[in-house]
Amino acid sequence: MSTLGIAVIGTGKMGADHVRRIGRTVGGARVVAVADPDGDRAGRVAAELDGAGAYTDPAAALAAPGVEAVLIASPGPAHEEAVLHALERRLPVLCEKPLTPDAAGALRIMEAEQRLGRRLVQVGFMRRHDAEYEELKQLLDAGGIGRPLFLHCRHRNASSPAFFTSDMLISDSVVHEVDAARWLLGQEVTAVSVLSPTPSSAAPEGLRDPRLVLLETSGGTVVDVEIFVNCGFGYQVQCEAVGESGSARIGDGHAMVVQGAGRWGGEIAQDFTVRFAEAYDRQLRRWVAAAGHGRVAGADAWDGYAAAAVSEAGLAAARSGVRTPVELVERPPLYR
Amino acid sequence: MSTLGIAVIGTGKMGADHVRRIGRTVGGARVVAVADPDGDRAGRVAAELDGAGAYTDPAAALAAPGVEAVLIASPGPAHEEAVLHALERRLPVLCEKPLTPDAAGALRIMEAEQRLGRRLVQVGFMRRHDAEYEELKQLLDAGGIGRPLFLHCRHRNASSPAFFTSDMLISDSVVHEVDAARWLLGQEVTAVSVLSPTPSSAAPEGLRDPRLVLLETSGGTVVDVEIFVNCGFGYQVQCEAVGESGSARIGDGHAMVVQGAGRWGGEIAQDFTVRFAEAYDRQLRRWVAAAGHGRVAGADAWDGYAAAAVSEAGLAAARSGVRTPVELVERPPLYR
Amino acid sequence: MSTLGIAVIGTGKMGADHVRRIGRTVGGARVVAVADPDGDRAGRVAAELDGAGAYTDPAAALAAPGVEAVLIASPGPAHEEAVLHALERRLPVLCEKPLTPDAAGALRIMEAEQRLGRRLVQVGFMRRHDAEYEELKQLLDAGGIGRPLFLHCRHRNASSPAFFTSDMLISDSVVHEVDAARWLLGQEVTAVSVLSPTPSSAAPEGLRDPRLVLLETSGGTVVDVEIFVNCGFGYQVQCEAVGESGSARIGDGHAMVVQGAGRWGGEIAQDFTVRFAEAYDRQLRRWVAAAGHGRVAGADAWDGYAAAAVSEAGLAAARSGVRTPVELVERPPLYR
Amino acid sequence: MSTLGIAVIGTGKMGADHVRRIGRTVGGARVVAVADPDGDRAGRVAAELDGAGAYTDPAAALAAPGVEAVLIASPGPAHEEAVLHALERRLPVLCEKPLTPDAAGALRIMEAEQRLGRRLVQVGFMRRHDAEYEELKQLLDAGGIGRPLFLHCRHRNASSPAFFTSDMLISDSVVHEVDAARWLLGQEVTAVSVLSPTPSSAAPEGLRDPRLVLLETSGGTVVDVEIFVNCGFGYQVQCEAVGESGSARIGDGHAMVVQGAGRWGGEIAQDFTVRFAEAYDRQLRRWVAAAGHGRVAGADAWDGYAAAAVSEAGLAAARSGVRTPVELVERPPLYR
Repeated sequence: MSTLGIAVIGTGKMGADHVRRIGRTVGGARVVAVADPDGDRAGRVAAELDGAGAYTDPAAALAAPGVEAVLIASPGPAHEEAVLHALERRLPVLCEKPLTPDAAGALRIMEAEQRLGRRLVQVGFMRRHDAEYEELKQLLDAGGIGRPLFLHCRHRNASSPAFFTSDMLISDSVVHEVDAARWLLGQEVTAVSVLSPTPSSAAPEGLRDPRLVLLETSGGTVVDVEIFVNCGFGYQVQCEAVGESGSARIGDGHAMVVQGAGRWGGEIAQDFTVRFAEAYDRQLRRWVAAAGHGRVAGADAWDGYAAAAVSEAGLAAARSGVRTPVELVERPPLYR
Repeated sequence: MSTLGIAVIGTGKMGADHVRRIGRTVGGARVVAVADPDGDRAGRVAAELDGAGAYTDPAAALAAPGVEAVLIASPGPAHEEAVLHALERRLPVLCEKPLTPDAAGALRIMEAEQRLGRRLVQVGFMRRHDAEYEELKQLLDAGGIGRPLFLHCRHRNASSPAFFTSDMLISDSVVHEVDAARWLLGQEVTAVSVLSPTPSSAAPEGLRDPRLVLLETSGGTVVDVEIFVNCGFGYQVQCEAVGESGSARIGDGHAMVVQGAGRWGGEIAQDFTVRFAEAYDRQLRRWVAAAGHGRVAGADAWDGYAAAAVSEAGLAAARSGVRTPVELVERPPLYR
Repeated sequence: MSTLGIAVIGTGKMGADHVRRIGRTVGGARVVAVADPDGDRAGRVAAELDGAGAYTDPAAALAAPGVEAVLIASPGPAHEEAVLHALERRLPVLCEKPLTPDAAGALRIMEAEQRLGRRLVQVGFMRRHDAEYEELKQLLDAGGIGRPLFLHCRHRNASSPAFFTSDMLISDSVVHEVDAARWLLGQEVTAVSVLSPTPSSAAPEGLRDPRLVLLETSGGTVVDVEIFVNCGFGYQVQCEAVGESGSARIGDGHAMVVQGAGRWGGEIAQDFTVRFAEAYDRQLRRWVAAAGHGRVAGADAWDGYAAAAVSEAGLAAARSGVRTPVELVERPPLYR
Repeated sequence: MSTLGIAVIGTGKMGADHVRRIGRTVGGARVVAVADPDGDRAGRVAAELDGAGAYTDPAAALAAPGVEAVLIASPGPAHEEAVLHALERRLPVLCEKPLTPDAAGALRIMEAEQRLGRRLVQVGFMRRHDAEYEELKQLLDAGGIGRPLFLHCRHRNASSPAFFTSDMLISDSVVHEVDAARWLLGQEVTAVSVLSPTPSSAAPEGLRDPRLVLLETSGGTVVDVEIFVNCGFGYQVQCEAVGESGSARIGDGHAMVVQGAGRWGGEIAQDFTVRFAEAYDRQLRRWVAAAGHGRVAGADAWDGYAAAAVSEAGLAAARSGVRTPVELVERPPLYR
């Protein structure tokens, strides 16, 4: 059992988390290089590791000795260039979502992969690795509730960071439901509508929060997503699938029930790092195992592209107030 | 403590149920007359009662000795005439929903009440008398979850009767959510949209079942209603209110939890008579108590009118596929 | 449909409640006489009724015109005399629990009934009329979880009244579980043990609260009862039955789920009048229907006797600290 | 970051599992030697590893190059000798429970550690590493429900293996609750009683299954444990702590709720490998991190001894049918 040498591009909160995960919970892998425009930050992360180099240039990190795979956790606009560099070196890539901020960039990545004739890029939609989502997926695939008619989704954050914009409710948050819906249903999204209640007074001035985003799919399923990034009470991701013969709900998160002072109940997780900690671990373990064999074990570049295209339509629907169709290119054979 | 003499108009399933309820679970009231176009049926119901007369003509029943109040359980198209007769006699009325099939008929009833200068008509929206709905209403009124932003509603029946049409999903089923939303929020509905997944293969040929009905309200709340009348697994009415500082959900109906054969869970009620039995009882008890003092203890004629107007807009939205505004007359002083 | 004339003996909290129930939620019955040693209190209750007489002597109330049945809600030590008077007049009786404070008194009532050759006495163990208990009973009777091996019971009160003693935890509180267990299982209790943790500091000085009471039954089932009358957080009655092929739990009481401030959950009922309101209503309705035909529709005098005998053994076990067998007389044919 | 070299003693189901865990989910550790009396089995496990030696003699494995810590997963009777060998080499040990089958063996291990003056032995009570148990422990330690009065525990297996005996219900199964109760409460067990319903007909002939085991503790808490190893419906470990001001329950395991065919509910885990998979992972990660610094990160030899002593008293109580006190030696300073 040899260990896979990984270069981590981006050592902010997410990148540093991944470095820690690889050290602590993933056997068979080690970080051999890190890159960040902030060289001090890269250096601090590398110093915790045994013999890893620190770089400011991603390309230099990819060229470092022992690099066999790349984990990209830099900001979205930097993804395309880093992914293309990795593909030039035929390195397996795990790229944090979004693959690219727009559909056009994702198409260029798909073209590069097609030239190589191999899928090397995996996108970090980590819900596909969450135990509850997997249980729901297995139930749907087994026909346990019949053909799906609705997905009712809730996506709530206690509060949004200062830089969050009305567009990001769709492109940064609902994009998770877009991928989850596509994956759960095995269908593409064909149209998007957006309904907006009067914004919550708890939301920052000017932020259209919350919203109800409605997706229609190629298989005739309707998906409604409540996105509410300043709900105040915690982080909550729920999904109820309603099929022709039954329904199934995940995401209640009710492990310990406490009674006291006239009430029963429990705590709500405050953060995705609590809710999806294990999903991040499993994503990394699966990617390491697959990357060692040059394979993808999650969302691929097509999935990254489709998510970007639905996001673009969603933003248009939010602005216009009317239902907006989603236009996708024909799916290339490599991604079928 | 004297007892209130009630005439029951209509002795089908619903009317006969009400007669039994009055005898069994409502102190202080007795049925003194019943009317049904099917005189045999009226006679059979009357025979179970002590000294009640049976009639084929509703007007004759209203004129029978001892009649102090009227319960109308005839088919919807017969409601307007019966209500107007009762108003002529200044009798308190409990009228099963819908008050009238169309908004115009409800307006005529409102005019008759305004001429009398009194509200005598109560509409049988029994959810207002359900313990869980009342708990939710109290929480909202007390500001327990802040200003409401969303109501997420589920309304499911195991199967629909043979006569059920696509229109009735809205005018007969969702109308309950229309009234419940208006009552819970204290707001009027201002627009309706309808989204339709591919119909369930379990639905009868030609029935557009299920649907997602979206209501917008005068206070900026968005209400989504899944109506699914052939869900197969039972009768289920759920509502989650999401406010600026919290959420609250009713309708899970999880009393007994059973474990066996690798599974935990419980039974789902198969019928509204099970789920709302106690709400029907309480509605009757409250109406009897209020009617004795010439008062209304539930939805009034304005509520009946508003529900009919939203139904009309909902049917138009379902046909056109686009968002349809709801137009209401100005609310008369009697109903403020 | 004529109405059953009822004499109510005892017009304290419980008796006055019953009078209100009969007026409000029980069709086909009316209170025609009330008795209380406190004549003023009896008078005030009677004044709310239409033509009911007020008495200080129970015997006089039983002899009042129109009395066809008797509801006894006086303190336990007064029950035996009142029941025997009613039996002399061959009147159906609904007697609040306990039937008598000791087994010997209950035996004398059984003897009186046997002389009449009829069962006229029903004991107010209202859990037999609770919808959740009935659901559990039906499941057990249908073999839904196989032969019962355990009942795990929780019986909690927010706080105990000032007059409550350590003995009353068993004779007044656990006696409900004794009857419920006998009824659910169709078995007699054969031995009692009691384990006592260090008393809660929230319990009044000197009160042995909480306790764990262990019952063994004639069918080899083990019943454990947590009795905790100063738990602080509410009124809670739960029961999990564990059988050879499954388990079933009632009493969670989780109707509305609220989320806010980092927590999910709901309210806990604070009082048995909330938790068992409907059971009291149904008990009265069933008794009125049965009493009209001279029948019993709930626990009978044998059940009252058996509960008293188990209580006596429980008190002995609590004092001695060792397992104490329960001795019952042979069950007379009238009660089989 | 160097990696800790581990010798694994015993390569049966449990040992092979641990080897896989170390390779897959524990960063910073590698297996360098395995031992099993069945040399072929040891060889097959070693062949999957990169450069690990296979041995039939545990002592030889401990002496292999690169061994820095020892994981013992051999049968219980072999533990004492292997632990003592490891202590001679001053190697950190993770020993599967029970530390030894009897209290006397555990005392000898404690003596060896005391001679070394260091605690090097950790016992594999993995519930201490389960997220739900940890949440409950934190709540209790923070006084969230006040001083604990009861622990109500359920421990159920779908079925027991062929070799399972009536004694093993206590020494092999309830021993987990013994350790969990000691750890949750920070108290020692002072007495044990056992109540036995008629055995389930689903249990093998002669097996006294299920049982109710009652523990009393030094702090006046009462612990009841339902142990039922042939419940048929799954693997279930639940615990409700009842304190002076509230209660808390873990172990419901209700992640996904499915509705269909008139029922709501979900699946019950069938196996401890599902329920406690993550606890085993975390136990290993914590032990690896602690062992690198010569520390213990879980139950120590004293905990192993106390569990063995309570087991011995439990077996005596089961045989005699009466409450049996637990006698412990004075706790040596090394373990305070």
